[in-house]
Amino acid sequence: MSSAFGNKLKIQIFGQSHSKGLGVVMDGIPAGMKIDLEEVQRFLDRRAGGKNAYSTARKEADTPTVLSGLVGDTTCGAPLCAIFENANTKSGDYDKLKGNLRPSHADYAAWMKYNGYQDRSGGGQFSGRLTLPLCFSGAVCIQLLRQQGVEVSSHILSIGEIQDEAFDLVDIKQKTYLPDEFPVLNAAVGEEMVAYMTEIAKEGDSVGGIVECAFTGIPVGVGEPIYDNVESCIARVMFGVPAVKGIEFGMGFAGVKQRGSECNDAFYLEGDQIKTKTNNSGGIQGGITNGMPVVFRVALKPTPSIYKEQETVNFKEMTENKFHIEGRHDPCIVPRALPCVEAAAAVALYDLLLEK
Amino acid sequence: MSSAFGNKLKIQIFGQSHSKGLGVVMDGIPAGMKIDLEEVQRFLDRRAGGKNAYSTARKEADTPTVLSGLVGDTTCGAPLCAIFENANTKSGDYDKLKGNLRPSHADYAAWMKYNGYQDRSGGGQFSGRLTLPLCFSGAVCIQLLRQQGVEVSSHILSIGEIQDEAFDLVDIKQKTYLPDEFPVLNAAVGEEMVAYMTEIAKEGDSVGGIVECAFTGIPVGVGEPIYDNVESCIARVMFGVPAVKGIEFGMGFAGVKQRGSECNDAFYLEGDQIKTKTNNSGGIQGGITNGMPVVFRVALKPTPSIYKEQETVNFKEMTENKFHIEGRHDPCIVPRALPCVEAAAAVALYDLLLEK
Amino acid sequence: MSSAFGNKLKIQIFGQSHSKGLGVVMDGIPAGMKIDLEEVQRFLDRRAGGKNAYSTARKEADTPTVLSGLVGDTTCGAPLCAIFENANTKSGDYDKLKGNLRPSHADYAAWMKYNGYQDRSGGGQFSGRLTLPLCFSGAVCIQLLRQQGVEVSSHILSIGEIQDEAFDLVDIKQKTYLPDEFPVLNAAVGEEMVAYMTEIAKEGDSVGGIVECAFTGIPVGVGEPIYDNVESCIARVMFGVPAVKGIEFGMGFAGVKQRGSECNDAFYLEGDQIKTKTNNSGGIQGGITNGMPVVFRVALKPTPSIYKEQETVNFKEMTENKFHIEGRHDPCIVPRALPCVEAAAAVALYDLLLEK
Amino acid sequence: MSSAFGNKLKIQIFGQSHSKGLGVVMDGIPAGMKIDLEEVQRFLDRRAGGKNAYSTARKEADTPTVLSGLVGDTTCGAPLCAIFENANTKSGDYDKLKGNLRPSHADYAAWMKYNGYQDRSGGGQFSGRLTLPLCFSGAVCIQLLRQQGVEVSSHILSIGEIQDEAFDLVDIKQKTYLPDEFPVLNAAVGEEMVAYMTEIAKEGDSVGGIVECAFTGIPVGVGEPIYDNVESCIARVMFGVPAVKGIEFGMGFAGVKQRGSECNDAFYLEGDQIKTKTNNSGGIQGGITNGMPVVFRVALKPTPSIYKEQETVNFKEMTENKFHIEGRHDPCIVPRALPCVEAAAAVALYDLLLEK
Repeated sequence: MSSAFGNKLKIQIFGQSHSKGLGVVMDGIPAGMKIDLEEVQRFLDRRAGGKNAYSTARKEADTPTVLSGLVGDTTCGAPLCAIFENANTKSGDYDKLKGNLRPSHADYAAWMKYNGYQDRSGGGQFSGRLTLPLCFSGAVCIQLLRQQGVEVSSHILSIGEIQDEAFDLVDIKQKTYLPDEFPVLNAAVGEEMVAYMTEIAKEGDSVGGIVECAFTGIPVGVGEPIYDNVESCIARVMFGVPAVKGIEFGMGFAGVKQRGSECNDAFYLEGDQIKTKTNNSGGIQGGITNGMPVVFRVALKPTPSIYKEQETVNFKEMTENKFHIEGRHDPCIVPRALPCVEAAAAVALYDLLLEK
Repeated sequence: MSSAFGNKLKIQIFGQSHSKGLGVVMDGIPAGMKIDLEEVQRFLDRRAGGKNAYSTARKEADTPTVLSGLVGDTTCGAPLCAIFENANTKSGDYDKLKGNLRPSHADYAAWMKYNGYQDRSGGGQFSGRLTLPLCFSGAVCIQLLRQQGVEVSSHILSIGEIQDEAFDLVDIKQKTYLPDEFPVLNAAVGEEMVAYMTEIAKEGDSVGGIVECAFTGIPVGVGEPIYDNVESCIARVMFGVPAVKGIEFGMGFAGVKQRGSECNDAFYLEGDQIKTKTNNSGGIQGGITNGMPVVFRVALKPTPSIYKEQETVNFKEMTENKFHIEGRHDPCIVPRALPCVEAAAAVALYDLLLEK
Repeated sequence: MSSAFGNKLKIQIFGQSHSKGLGVVMDGIPAGMKIDLEEVQRFLDRRAGGKNAYSTARKEADTPTVLSGLVGDTTCGAPLCAIFENANTKSGDYDKLKGNLRPSHADYAAWMKYNGYQDRSGGGQFSGRLTLPLCFSGAVCIQLLRQQGVEVSSHILSIGEIQDEAFDLVDIKQKTYLPDEFPVLNAAVGEEMVAYMTEIAKEGDSVGGIVECAFTGIPVGVGEPIYDNVESCIARVMFGVPAVKGIEFGMGFAGVKQRGSECNDAFYLEGDQIKTKTNNSGGIQGGITNGMPVVFRVALKPTPSIYKEQETVNFKEMTENKFHIEGRHDPCIVPRALPCVEAAAAVALYDLLLEK
Repeated sequence: MSSAFGNKLKIQIFGQSHSKGLGVVMDGIPAGMKIDLEEVQRFLDRRAGGKNAYSTARKEADTPTVLSGLVGDTTCGAPLCAIFENANTKSGDYDKLKGNLRPSHADYAAWMKYNGYQDRSGGGQFSGRLTLPLCFSGAVCIQLLRQQGVEVSSHILSIGEIQDEAFDLVDIKQKTYLPDEFPVLNAAVGEEMVAYMTEIAKEGDSVGGIVECAFTGIPVGVGEPIYDNVESCIARVMFGVPAVKGIEFGMGFAGVKQRGSECNDAFYLEGDQIKTKTNNSGGIQGGITNGMPVVFRVALKPTPSIYKEQETVNFKEMTENKFHIEGRHDPCIVPRALPCVEAAAAVALYDLLLEK
């Protein structure tokens, strides 16, 4: 078991950083749905790096080949499989590490889990590269969700200490974009964030941040009790996105300081529709959607790959060691992680929507 | 789909607040394991209410009847089923609500999801009562984990604004207990919390809090990539615990403000064992355990059931309405939720341990 | 993993022959469905023994207690759990076997599988008693199928060498019943079978037979490709019925001797409906229903429990041994297995119907 | 849901007859296992057609490309994905059928299931071509099983009326091969079969047959009770092989005519090993392996594609019609289906072995 997810929609991801290819199988999409692959490509471009001072220079051939599941631009009921080639598949390059375990990477855990047989090259199956098929599946689900009136919005809520405005939980406003797909609500704050990340990059260090994501237009009653509730399913997929270390819905951690009388979302009538005046629940009550925007925040830790010298253990010689990681890295993964957050959540929500 | 969870260990929960009974089936426990039912009972007593000024007076017959899966005190390889009777099964009492949708409860979402056929009595399958079988399954898994050297510790990190000390992430210290199973690290802070909850109870209001939980002794290499990683599985089950609105691992949300050079956990050698000097990763890297304590924090919202008058919609007359909820409620669910947090996580971890 | 089945409808069976109780959880039945428990009881009575010369005398308290999932007679969307008490739970009685492995029973396989920890009393979880919850789940699904226009018919096609007429594959005729729920198409043949079984019983031996089962009214397009096709799902559950050793659909094994030109089912128009002139496919083409009756035959081996002396190995002394099994047994399980066959298939079909 | 299977080993098949490609993902193979891809290729060649008078001329590029899961020749714990190109992907050729539904093919059922959106080209996802990834997954599992001492043997038991000798159920003998991988126990009978199929081919008709398959060396105690017993799992996957209409284990349908005293498999001691004198159970008791050879027989219907004129309905004009199918077809699929039978069973058994 491992890289599979879903009930009605089964997602199976495969591949390693330097294997011949990687990809995803989506089994369970209803027949007769239109998929716009150019729009998918535009979504994938949002996660691609190498466009600016604060993301890695690796240029990737990130164009999917759809092997099955489509007839023209329409699903046929067969599993949809999309694959991506790995340009750089020379598996020698992990030797650069010369046996040094990269702190806060999966190196050590994977080595022990797979008794040394894991693919060490470029992080193997733990590489951020695996978010490419994840984003493909999400881009498809975002289209399928939109066809049912569900829209996703997200922005960078913080980078390090720098805070963007938060979403109005009852009224999600369209986000502002700086150049290079840098989504924030307050453009000025965005400029600050970019400047800060560029500074951090110069220092050879990294920093984390928070992504805030909202889905609007979800019908009431989506989600299953206990283990497949909406929060459970979104949280499950979200921790599959590298660097995610926390998630909260609605008021989340801030809500614990409130009184019930403040935090409860009072129902009212808008015409014959039942709505809530506030949305501290983040659109989810008892694990089920209540028709209000589903809003959550995801904490992304600082990229563990940094230039600065680090202490570690060399598993080949079993000695303590000092080393630094070569190659180019993202000083902050948040901008590239944002589409992954949208993608992961879209897959979980579409699966639950089919389940309904 | 809904109330089922697990790969190697399948958990199936069933029951409603006022159905004849409720319970859980645990399918996949290896044969030959000893289960101490008295110890299970002591665990269940920790979630029982009615013992003090800040928890509901409902007295429940919370003693499990094990129908199958055990021969004497030993598992036989057959699914283990435990059931609980519901003392109060007169399903009339929801009429008290007279059609008023309780704010921030599942009432409205469930009504829409099940087209009005949901069991409205006492919250039906969305009742906190369902944490009873959840705790049973967790109490069993905690014993099975202990037999493999894994121990769980948890404490109340905060109630409203009142903060207990946090765990030392690399060295989990045994918790202090006030009377009535009130686990905190700093007893003085605990007294404050109790006084505060009692005050809130008098006001007819409620408040939330945070539980911090740690598992020690987990072997390296537990967890599967992407969708079944340790964080994904713990998060998934945790949002099945009522009132949970957020979860974070290791440094979690605070970590996003750190630099990679601070946040990375440097490896070192302790004899021939590889360990990390810090544990900002919360014992999990790449979704897989690294042998350090697995530590996470769970945000619990204020109990939505309060005495204070609330605004809502009456779904029978489709009118806006003012009402207040009768009966006794917990002004703060955190103390009773804490064993549920341990239980839910124990189930997820034991399933992953079997998977390994 | 083990006693669980289903995609949209999850079935979890639990219990042993002499555990406190046994039962089943059905998770995924839509809310708002009416269940007639008296009709369920009449179905369960069909599998009960002790009514005649050819079935065991064990009188069982086979009345289900529904713990959850129903409000009155209507499903509420919560998992439906039904339990049965085991009257005889004194677990000493397996000592009668004094360590002798019953030939063609699960005794030896289970002993090895569970390292001796299996529940040996009365066959433990391998007891035919487990067909009681299986039949409960099937009886419920038969009602749910009927509400969608699907009807099940079945009859005893053979006992030993004695053959009943076979179904007309395109036109399933209502079956004839002898007293004691003995369903055959030709009553005279039925009398013969009863006489034969009574004879076999006198000899202390047993015999097998074949059940033929048909479902009519299934819509076109039910079933999923490859692993969840209709034949796969029915076959999977059918081998969960004790004593089943073979299954065939439509012409089955006889069809292999036909030419394609004979065996192919020609399409024709009945008004605007597409039908087939013959039904050698048994209503299933490419694993998917084509609207014709779904017909299959199940081979049931002779009951392994016989009075005649048998050779075996005693696992306590690890010696070869001669012994004979005490207590009363069915000389032929076919009549009691027939409702189990209907039940198992109904569960698989209803799950696929929900999947559609 | 559909083209996915397995608990510990997850198999996900994808592709259509004329899509860009097809393939399989195998998720759950332990790390560190050696896979010999040349041996896999030799296995795949056994199912390839076009080598003789009785199989279709279609020449296919049936060489897998392994995208992931291997480092050199060793599994690394990541999902193993293998893909195959489809040489002929011009999707026009189904127009040859001009809307005529091929009798006893999936055409009609699929058309209704997918509301006309199914891939009609070359049978789409219902094409026999999908057995190519199935065989790949099986060839890998056969190697993994062999590494644990499990061997598979199979032969053609019958073509039409022509019968080969049956396996000795307690002592499986190595099979004889005619040229072109035509496995029978009696070579003379094999010659007869070949002559007969060639004759049928001349007539433009087709015929069916039976494959007998045996696995030796399986440890005692493999299989799970009720729904995941060995017979259930093998049967489930077997009906995923096109043209399969029946399966039986051990004595199967013939066993129903036996007395219990004949059919029961008496235990005896061979040294300190418990064995059975006969193997009418086919190595499976209570659904669990007992250490004797696992033997089963599979009925394969005559290939539905024949040259002879057939009656059908044209779904475009909704008129009854006479037509005949062009192109070359197998007059008998049995020889090419045999490796598919081995492959499907190997996947099910290896999954259960990992489960153990």
